[in-house]
This record gives sequence, C-alpha cells and structure tokens, in this order.
Amino acid sequence: MELFSHEYYMNEALKQAKYAFEEGEIPVGAVIVSNNRIIARAYNQTEKLHDVTAHAEMLAITSAANSLGAKYLTDCKMYVTLEPCQMCAGALFWAQISELHFGASDPKRGFMKVNSKALHPKTKISTGILAEQSESLLNEFFNKLRK
Amino acid sequence: MELFSHEYYMNEALKQAKYAFEEGEIPVGAVIVSNNRIIARAYNQTEKLHDVTAHAEMLAITSAANSLGAKYLTDCKMYVTLEPCQMCAGALFWAQISELHFGASDPKRGFMKVNSKALHPKTKISTGILAEQSESLLNEFFNKLRK
Repeated sequence: MELFSHEYYMNEALKQAKYAFEEGEIPVGAVIVSNNRIIARAYNQTEKLHDVTAHAEMLAITSAANSLGAKYLTDCKMYVTLEPCQMCAGALFWAQISELHFGASDPKRGFMKVNSKALHPKTKISTGILAEQSESLLNEFFNKLRK
Repeated sequence: MELFSHEYYMNEALKQAKYAFEEGEIPVGAVIVSNNRIIARAYNQTEKLHDVTAHAEMLAITSAANSLGAKYLTDCKMYVTLEPCQMCAGALFWAQISELHFGASDPKRGFMKVNSKALHPKTKISTGILAEQSESLLNEFFNKLRK
C-alpha cells in the first residue's frame, strides 16, 4: 500500500536539503521510509562536523538503523535529492536497501558512472524525481559560493 | 622522518582488529598516523552499533578529523588490516588521505577489483603488510562462526 507518492517523500528530502543550504552546507537531503513512515531524515553536515563521511545518506542510514534497532534496511526506501557518491552507494549496498530514489544526477561524483553495479542486486532504483528543484538548489548554492 | 616502521603501525591496527574479534565483530582494525603519531584507532563495530557504516576505516576517519579539527586528512596515513570496501575507499577519497597501507586483500568486497581508481589520485597505496596475521585472524573468526 502506497499512502504517499514518490514526490511527497522527495519533497521531504528537499526540505532537508534546504536546511543544509541555510547552514552553508552543500544542499543534499535524504529521508528513509519504512512501512510508509519516514523513520530517518538527514542533510549533509560535512562542514559542521568536519567530517567527510557526514553525507546526508550516511547520516540517514545510521539514523534509520538506530530507529529499527537493526543494521539491514531491507524493507526501506531512500529518497535523496542527489545521486549518491561511491561511499554512500557502498553504504547502501551493505544496508541492502530495498529502493533508492534520487533526484538530480551527479555526472562527476555519482556512483552510476564509476560503478553502476555498486548497489545490492536486490535494490530497485529510480531517478529524476523533483530533479529540477534539487539541481536549482545546488546551482544557487555554488553560484553564491563563487561570488 | 620515519620514527616507526610500517609494520609497527600495522601491528597497532592488528591490535584493534583483535579487540573486534573479542567482541564478536568481523576482525578489522585501523589506525591513522599524522606526523608519526597515531591520532585515531578504531575497529569494526557494525554489530554492536547495528550500523553498516561502522567499519573500522569510517570510524577512524571521523576520529582523526575530530582530532585534527579538519575534514581533510591530506597529511595522514591509514593502516588497515584488510583491503577497504568501496564505501571506505569512497570515504578515503573524500578525505584525500595521503597514504593507504593495507594488510590482507579482499578479493570479494575490496575496492581494488570493483574500482581500482576509487581513491584520490594523490593517495599512495601499499599492500600486504602483516597480511598473514590479518588473514589468519579473519579465518579464525569465520571458522568459529561456522561451528
């Protein structure tokens, strides 16, 4: 049963990305859904935490696992505003996430170009949900940074 | 100036792997060295923390960044008992670690097979240091598990 649409959940991820933007972080946000319920919300915090591992996806995986008390996210869906990097794809592989939905593509650092088989074979992927909104938030951030 | 040998630091990583073994975790340990000083020590804690991201390397990177108050580990060397997976290699890429030394190879999940260019182009790699000790600890762990 699907109570909410993919767009609904991606919009929740976008809200997280906007928090990142406001805090001067590269604006990427993620949520993890289990049984139609959002069990984890996170945004990129690499600057604040001085930690390259603090991507939205990584924080969301840790948070979801805490919420479930289990390390495998086999019945969970991730919605993330940007295509995951190889680190995050590797984490999603270990977590055996059921579905990965991402918004904008990342042709430079996204996992799809480097290793399109990075995810677990059971993980279903969809791309492009609210991609324009995610991309324009990222562009606004980098344009601001360059000024 | 090299005060200690690669074997010395890898032996410190092996001590961490042994802590993991004692706690029922897959025995992998890592240390990070800056200016000849160990600034981070960690071992795999995926079971204890119910968190697939809690690999020794990830915990060591976060700990080293905390110690330095900076997210880039450009003057740091990692010693880890097993070849990093793609998640950890991705994290080492972002951290721009200066040197990666690993013990045993991991032909199944190691990054070298999947994507040998996963690390930052500036990162120097050496392999095989105390590999036999690392491997026999892993074998002992998995043999015990199978019984």
